[in-house]
Amino acid sequence: MKKRNKKITAGILVIGNEILSGRTIDQNISFLALWLNNNLGIKVSEVRIVPDIESKIVTNVLSLSKKNNYVLTTGGIGPTHDDITAKSISKAFKKKYTYHKEAYNILLKYYGHKNFNDPRKKMAKMPTGSKLIYNPSSAAPGFMIKNVICLPGVPSILKSMVDNLKQYLVPGSKIYSLSISTQTIESNIANGLEIAQKKYRKFVDIGSYPFFRLGKIGVSIVIRSSNKTRLQSCHKTIVKFLKKKKLKIFKGI
Amino acid sequence: MKKRNKKITAGILVIGNEILSGRTIDQNISFLALWLNNNLGIKVSEVRIVPDIESKIVTNVLSLSKKNNYVLTTGGIGPTHDDITAKSISKAFKKKYTYHKEAYNILLKYYGHKNFNDPRKKMAKMPTGSKLIYNPSSAAPGFMIKNVICLPGVPSILKSMVDNLKQYLVPGSKIYSLSISTQTIESNIANGLEIAQKKYRKFVDIGSYPFFRLGKIGVSIVIRSSNKTRLQSCHKTIVKFLKKKKLKIFKGI
Repeated sequence: MKKRNKKITAGILVIGNEILSGRTIDQNISFLALWLNNNLGIKVSEVRIVPDIESKIVTNVLSLSKKNNYVLTTGGIGPTHDDITAKSISKAFKKKYTYHKEAYNILLKYYGHKNFNDPRKKMAKMPTGSKLIYNPSSAAPGFMIKNVICLPGVPSILKSMVDNLKQYLVPGSKIYSLSISTQTIESNIANGLEIAQKKYRKFVDIGSYPFFRLGKIGVSIVIRSSNKTRLQSCHKTIVKFLKKKKLKIFKGI
Repeated sequence: MKKRNKKITAGILVIGNEILSGRTIDQNISFLALWLNNNLGIKVSEVRIVPDIESKIVTNVLSLSKKNNYVLTTGGIGPTHDDITAKSISKAFKKKYTYHKEAYNILLKYYGHKNFNDPRKKMAKMPTGSKLIYNPSSAAPGFMIKNVICLPGVPSILKSMVDNLKQYLVPGSKIYSLSISTQTIESNIANGLEIAQKKYRKFVDIGSYPFFRLGKIGVSIVIRSSNKTRLQSCHKTIVKFLKKKKLKIFKGI
């Protein structure tokens, strides 16, 4: 693995009317964000969800591509008329939208000559010069062109493909995180957290998240940093402040 | 209710590091999209998820505000240091960020003089000229300024507030939808769906979504339109095509 010494960011572009209509609850954003963070030290900087409309895909993929080291798209690479991701990305980067020879052969082998109809062949079409992301679940590969990686929308298939994607991504500095949960309401501890955040401004991100679980009201404080020593020191500061307030600290939430 | 005779769109801006880190799976996008669609005929055109960074909130809220009739933001209106939505939106619209008298009084009454500390008071600060969205769960109101509506991130609280938001939104044309589920794979029916989509291009959106449930593989076809007659006619076309292919049609999926 290459040396982790810098900040690497990714944007996620979710392509699909079914997410915007509310019909489907997205599961891929959270999975990809955790996977990128934990395995590669890549931070997701922004997510956009757009409909199956070519112009919207083109504008947003170009915008995210300029601002981030990587863009991961999900959805729209299947065989039906509403799967327009590969064609749209070709247009965005002014590449020819054409058959990828290896992808064509993978699909031909998977379906057999007799069943390799036009919709299935379409899944081998992508921007010229794309690298393939192999798909161990259902053959149809994802692809990478420039800094954009196109993955399917079905969560189980997407999950099965990320191991084959790893080789194309340069890792960033590892991001460490620690959680502290306590039985209180946010406004009781807001001042202390603000003081801690000011003290560690350059090194640690402190997040505060109220929860209501199993009849208990509480706050989870999540602290994140690429500097392990500062993170532990910030953790100590917060725990000390909570103890001074006589608040109980939970484990495992 | 006002007459529903036009296309009304909304953008959603999710504000929160916890969604971008993958720690929290967003539940509000799907809820808001369904609620806007089903109750008001308002279509969600785009969603963006941004971190708790003022400049990012400002840029994205202005961009979505220009392109849509409404923008709904979620998250960042609590009492802690990372709750910067109200301040950022004030900056975006060049409004003073100050106490809203009614909001202040609501919170004062809720907490009582003795417990009304600075973090709690902060929840009464918002852009000058905001209208309040009352909060029956935990008092702290949301607000509307220009065409932007700011709601909390905690799903149960957000859900309890949308009835109080309805009065501020002009409804659009009702969007009808029908689903057809069948036991096949997408590439088997892609050609037929494409023909149907071309036939009803101007009136109906046809979406195709593979599923894997209870050991069954299938496709859900979702058709949507503001024109009920065309929707039913398109439904007939698709059912006829599936029957010709001898495919079984499921109910209730």
